[in-house]
Amino acid sequence: MNAPGPLLVVGSVAYDDVETAYGKRENLLGGSATYFSVAASGFTAPRLVGVVGRDFGSGDKHIFDSHGVDTTGLVIDPSGDTFRWGGRYHADMNQRTTLYTHLNVFERFRPAIPETYADSEYVFLGNIDPDLQLDVLGKVRAPKFVAMDTMNFWIDGKRDAVLRVLSRVEAILLNDEEGSLLTGARTALGVGRGIQRLGPPIVVLKRGEHGALLFHHNDIFYVPAYPLEVVVDPTGAGDSFAGGFMGWLARSGDLTLDNLRRCMLAGSIMASFCVEGFGLSQLRDVGPDAIRRRYTDFEALTRCPSLNL
Amino acid sequence: MNAPGPLLVVGSVAYDDVETAYGKRENLLGGSATYFSVAASGFTAPRLVGVVGRDFGSGDKHIFDSHGVDTTGLVIDPSGDTFRWGGRYHADMNQRTTLYTHLNVFERFRPAIPETYADSEYVFLGNIDPDLQLDVLGKVRAPKFVAMDTMNFWIDGKRDAVLRVLSRVEAILLNDEEGSLLTGARTALGVGRGIQRLGPPIVVLKRGEHGALLFHHNDIFYVPAYPLEVVVDPTGAGDSFAGGFMGWLARSGDLTLDNLRRCMLAGSIMASFCVEGFGLSQLRDVGPDAIRRRYTDFEALTRCPSLNL
Repeated sequence: MNAPGPLLVVGSVAYDDVETAYGKRENLLGGSATYFSVAASGFTAPRLVGVVGRDFGSGDKHIFDSHGVDTTGLVIDPSGDTFRWGGRYHADMNQRTTLYTHLNVFERFRPAIPETYADSEYVFLGNIDPDLQLDVLGKVRAPKFVAMDTMNFWIDGKRDAVLRVLSRVEAILLNDEEGSLLTGARTALGVGRGIQRLGPPIVVLKRGEHGALLFHHNDIFYVPAYPLEVVVDPTGAGDSFAGGFMGWLARSGDLTLDNLRRCMLAGSIMASFCVEGFGLSQLRDVGPDAIRRRYTDFEALTRCPSLNL
Repeated sequence: MNAPGPLLVVGSVAYDDVETAYGKRENLLGGSATYFSVAASGFTAPRLVGVVGRDFGSGDKHIFDSHGVDTTGLVIDPSGDTFRWGGRYHADMNQRTTLYTHLNVFERFRPAIPETYADSEYVFLGNIDPDLQLDVLGKVRAPKFVAMDTMNFWIDGKRDAVLRVLSRVEAILLNDEEGSLLTGARTALGVGRGIQRLGPPIVVLKRGEHGALLFHHNDIFYVPAYPLEVVVDPTGAGDSFAGGFMGWLARSGDLTLDNLRRCMLAGSIMASFCVEGFGLSQLRDVGPDAIRRRYTDFEALTRCPSLNL
């Protein structure tokens, strides 16, 4: 029950231009695999598979290196620029407007798994084309625990492929709107049970500032978002959650419900650091003491005293 | 620290016409004071102050009587009809359209506090004109714990009066959008701390399907909404939460943080029964065993295992 193992993530690496109520930043290193791997690096040394373009900076490479992220699988495609996303958040941070999405080299991304990654045991299939997710899965020799993400674009456009991936993974982590689109259910419980019927015994519904729900066979665990006075930039929060969750899991190798609860807390903790600054500015400096302090805060935040009715 | 006492609620009694994805119902007994007092009756025998019109039915009076709700303070105004509200919920239940609001006799409502209510110790000032809330407060001899509700209409139109009530209560229970309007803050923590600075040491932010947050001096407690596969009719959920919270408080008389956590759980439990049926159809049949079972479920839902990092 307790066998830690190497963690692989495949997803996007991007440059983000972000505007929130607290300011505007350009050329932030971002993308789902970036936030995931930096968050996971709090617990383990993740292996990254992704692509960047000719504009990828050595300072940005250094961010991965200094966090112990293995970038053997990060391809530099000299034929174009890195994926670039621009977005503006509304005042309440719950809604955002995408200003532009330039896929650039990410459009031609065909994930190659280096031979040194083939023994990965924990695998996170980030939000990419479901056919590519299946392709990656076929190249990992003996995965112990595979989790996936997806988005509306794939659920609408390639539903059958999404369902094929779903039937082959242990877990899916996704936003609740995506969960509703996937199942047609109207409540979180309806969505969770609906997705479980499609295959994975473990479903994590991410709800932004409203926390996240874990469905594990018949059990449910709820973790709130860590209370913050100020949310500076929500970009990457969901990916940081996934990175914390999977990082903890790969480090512990423990698939019991109790430990999956810890994974949820680790996810919520990493997401909370993520949103406290633009891009990776806060997340990149998180150490074990800061994680432990927030864990203790969570215990106090949700502790139910015994009933005396 | 442990002195139970009588609970008073002032608010609306109404007839509701409601349409949700699960059907359409007319002439449902509703209103904030109705949901509050039926929920509170799970724990104590609340005293109700409100007004109904010449159309008020004896069957509806019986609902109060059979739940031990004291209706000495429920005035029957023969000059008009009972407050009537009509609403339609969208498919996802998070938004609703008000079809009509006929205040009827509620428009001229001036709460009179019967002499037998003057010794009330726990007081809930439901969502009425803040000047009337102050008036009620002046008529209760020695209240121990006063909580209030309010809404956007009063925050926008009578902000100064709302602030005067706020400065005289121990607690406010309100929706998070209303909290944002009151404080200008963008996060739940910002709203909670912002309202505390306006007076009350205890703030409860209600967030519908996303649960509720308690701010108690420097401490925070979070309770999720009870997971339900189907939400039939959300009408009255917030008032049922308030009724469960105050009912438990009045029954226990215990103002410690631990017991306020139990109040939050009692609130979330009563709200969960409320939304499982149209109007009072489920809430009216809730007994102590059903409450205990959901309390146990909440313990499992949020239990954090010890950290082994």
